[in-house]
Amino acid sequence: MTRVAFVGLGAMGVPMSSNLVKKGFTVTGFDLSANALNALENAGGRRAGTAEEAATGADVLILMVVNAAQAEAVLFEGGALEALQPDGVIALMATCPPAAVEAIEERVRKAGRRLIDAPVSGGVAGATAATLTIMAAGSRDTFGVVKPIFDALGDKVFHVGERPGQGAMVKTVNQLLCGVHIAVVAEAFALASKVGVDLKILLEIMSGSAASSWMLKDRGPRMLQSDPEVTSAVDIFVKDLGIVLDAGRATKAALPLAAAAHQMFLAASGRGDGNADDSQVIRTYFALDGVK
Amino acid sequence: MTRVAFVGLGAMGVPMSSNLVKKGFTVTGFDLSANALNALENAGGRRAGTAEEAATGADVLILMVVNAAQAEAVLFEGGALEALQPDGVIALMATCPPAAVEAIEERVRKAGRRLIDAPVSGGVAGATAATLTIMAAGSRDTFGVVKPIFDALGDKVFHVGERPGQGAMVKTVNQLLCGVHIAVVAEAFALASKVGVDLKILLEIMSGSAASSWMLKDRGPRMLQSDPEVTSAVDIFVKDLGIVLDAGRATKAALPLAAAAHQMFLAASGRGDGNADDSQVIRTYFALDGVK
Repeated sequence: MTRVAFVGLGAMGVPMSSNLVKKGFTVTGFDLSANALNALENAGGRRAGTAEEAATGADVLILMVVNAAQAEAVLFEGGALEALQPDGVIALMATCPPAAVEAIEERVRKAGRRLIDAPVSGGVAGATAATLTIMAAGSRDTFGVVKPIFDALGDKVFHVGERPGQGAMVKTVNQLLCGVHIAVVAEAFALASKVGVDLKILLEIMSGSAASSWMLKDRGPRMLQSDPEVTSAVDIFVKDLGIVLDAGRATKAALPLAAAAHQMFLAASGRGDGNADDSQVIRTYFALDGVK
Repeated sequence: MTRVAFVGLGAMGVPMSSNLVKKGFTVTGFDLSANALNALENAGGRRAGTAEEAATGADVLILMVVNAAQAEAVLFEGGALEALQPDGVIALMATCPPAAVEAIEERVRKAGRRLIDAPVSGGVAGATAATLTIMAAGSRDTFGVVKPIFDALGDKVFHVGERPGQGAMVKTVNQLLCGVHIAVVAEAFALASKVGVDLKILLEIMSGSAASSWMLKDRGPRMLQSDPEVTSAVDIFVKDLGIVLDAGRATKAALPLAAAAHQMFLAASGRGDGNADDSQVIRTYFALDGVK
């Protein structure tokens, strides 16, 4: 059976590693948080004192860290890369810019290991229920090695391309659509509110029409509240639409809608609303238009 | 029983007027097309030789014409306004700019008649099945007069506000969301295609994620075709996003996303694709980015 090392036991990493244990994989994990290591141990996994120790002798190293910089630190400074089995596979499942993934893959390849680029969507709920969407890019052979692991973590496992970086691009495109969809609902509601249209009725009508989107139905109700519960913060889209625009620069692609939406989230953050629910990007439109 | 005059027997008007006849209303119709008048007669309605003749003695005059200019011509030049019963109601169901609806309502009110602003969505299919969405704005009394008529035409009848122009604004907001949703799918797909991501797999993933929208699922598949069937033309969104931006000017509301999306449809039309399916706004991104 494949020996799995799992680095990055956060809100997603703990349920993901637990699901691997349940499906019979031998999992050794590392995280800086002792609580996270205890959680893995309680689920039947093994704890390691360092990332290098976790990776020693493993066939597959899963990285579920916060960003590309942490992935680089684990692999190239923490010694995990060299500790892996020769020909071992790294599954980079964190959300990273496509160009950063390409650069990491090149260094991994030169060290005689293989990388599969495999960001996820579905959040903590999907991680817990093993219903994540996994967008994997890498050679067919490498994908074959990690496929049983991915099937234990999600129920929508896609091989989106042969080149690492393409998985990160699919995740980037996902965030482009999500970010613009949130901002355009705010733009639409702010326009309607200028002429006194009842926004609750508007939301009901739009939810059932060709104007509907997943984000309209999810964020729309929270846009009608002045200080809603935070399910995802404005600053997440400041970051993610930043990754989108970086990807556009790297590939030389014009992204006029994503660029305009990013400005609206940036302005919300700049006015002090970075930690507010991302639906509150509508406050940027209210500020622009002078709506109370 | 209410006597209904119906002016504008196009692809929507014929099935709408037929549904009114079926529900027991006395309907007298007018259109410049003899075929349209025959269709109404075959359905059990009465034909008139002019809009004025159709409106003579009617309690409610439905205008299902092409635009605000036609509505003005029928009411103020064609004599239909004065021919209506004193205190008669005009239901303006064509898609018009909110400011134009306000101007028409003022003239109607001065002539001692009442106007309800009631654009629809749902297309020919909704008109035929009597499942239209109707977004009505006007006083509660006036809405009460036309409510039985609207219930015969649609199954989602909303009273969105007391002031005529607010219905047109809801329809305008609907088109804002639709137009931006189409353009952003094109922007996302064009970015992904720059790095060789398989767009069919991308569409499948996005359709099941938080990035989904009604337009993504409907227009996305046609974006993957080089010359798809035309279900709605690029020039429709050149016009409708133009109405959106006019509404933003009239109310002094900044609409950065709608403005950017409009540019993309305008460019598509300017390159000679005005009659192509609106999914082909993706060609504007391909032209911008040099994608073949």
